[in-house]
Amino acid sequence: MADAAKDSPVLLGAEDIRLTPVGRISSPFKAPSLKGSKDGIKVSDERQPSRREHDEDSEIIIKDEYAELLDGIADFSHAVVIYWPHLLPVEGRKARKVYPAGITDMPLTGVFATCSPARPNPLLTTVVEVLEHSGNVLKVHGLEAVDGSPVLDIKPYNRHYMLRPEAKAAEWMEQLDERFS
Amino acid sequence: MADAAKDSPVLLGAEDIRLTPVGRISSPFKAPSLKGSKDGIKVSDERQPSRREHDEDSEIIIKDEYAELLDGIADFSHAVVIYWPHLLPVEGRKARKVYPAGITDMPLTGVFATCSPARPNPLLTTVVEVLEHSGNVLKVHGLEAVDGSPVLDIKPYNRHYMLRPEAKAAEWMEQLDERFS
Repeated sequence: MADAAKDSPVLLGAEDIRLTPVGRISSPFKAPSLKGSKDGIKVSDERQPSRREHDEDSEIIIKDEYAELLDGIADFSHAVVIYWPHLLPVEGRKARKVYPAGITDMPLTGVFATCSPARPNPLLTTVVEVLEHSGNVLKVHGLEAVDGSPVLDIKPYNRHYMLRPEAKAAEWMEQLDERFS
Repeated sequence: MADAAKDSPVLLGAEDIRLTPVGRISSPFKAPSLKGSKDGIKVSDERQPSRREHDEDSEIIIKDEYAELLDGIADFSHAVVIYWPHLLPVEGRKARKVYPAGITDMPLTGVFATCSPARPNPLLTTVVEVLEHSGNVLKVHGLEAVDGSPVLDIKPYNRHYMLRPEAKAAEWMEQLDERFS
């Protein structure tokens, strides 16, 4: 029994999930396009949402101690970045239903059926183009994150896992995609 | 000054990122297919990795207090689930480089260029098919998570943001995709 206990690894469990930023984002965007609160999201006065965000380059600056974890990323054309919206008000985590993109003629929708940054665990993900990897800096295209956002994870884009050409979206999302494109 | 301070929301910041599980996964998989440690990942004795995982159904059981956040999810054919690998040893977060899928004739690769579950912030993501939504239960197809895994977030699959048919992967990943398909 004692031996078995000694050999058993300590597992992550579920009770207290703490994350450590592995780096931060250097971006031309200084303010979020959507402001979140417990009542939902609304368009920021400082920055209108736009698909032009996909035309900008950003740099992901990884902490030195994690730099070697990037080795091999340049063999992929695309990656998924998970980051933390550090400028979101704490109470934004209490949002239950939101108007998509803060537009009130859209249907009031449960947060898990939207991409709202205001959500219980605001883990924001963006698929980016990998432009250049040098040391602890990864230059990417199309990262929709505010300057200074803490980076939590980077993964390669895998077609088998992520490409779903047959995917159908809610009608409101199709409308939004048209409106912003 | 006092008024301005009163009106400024408290922001999430970056120093202490804590997450709260919003539910858990009920799955036919009782053990992870890959075992993680600080030295990397290896294939589990209990479960060989296989793409058959995409042929199984799972249920996501959301805590009652978050159930309404699912409203509208059934209007999407696909969703992204972010979950926590609660059976990963804590020391797995120290992994720097791994052999992809634990196969030692693959190149030793930085963790951020792999889908290794052993990584600094093990936020695992899977694109699933949405089968049925009823109350606090979301039935899905293709969720590669172990029974009991805490769920952190659910988002709709958006073609504009996630569909990248032009994506090119590292040669080792193409080989793995062929080997497991």
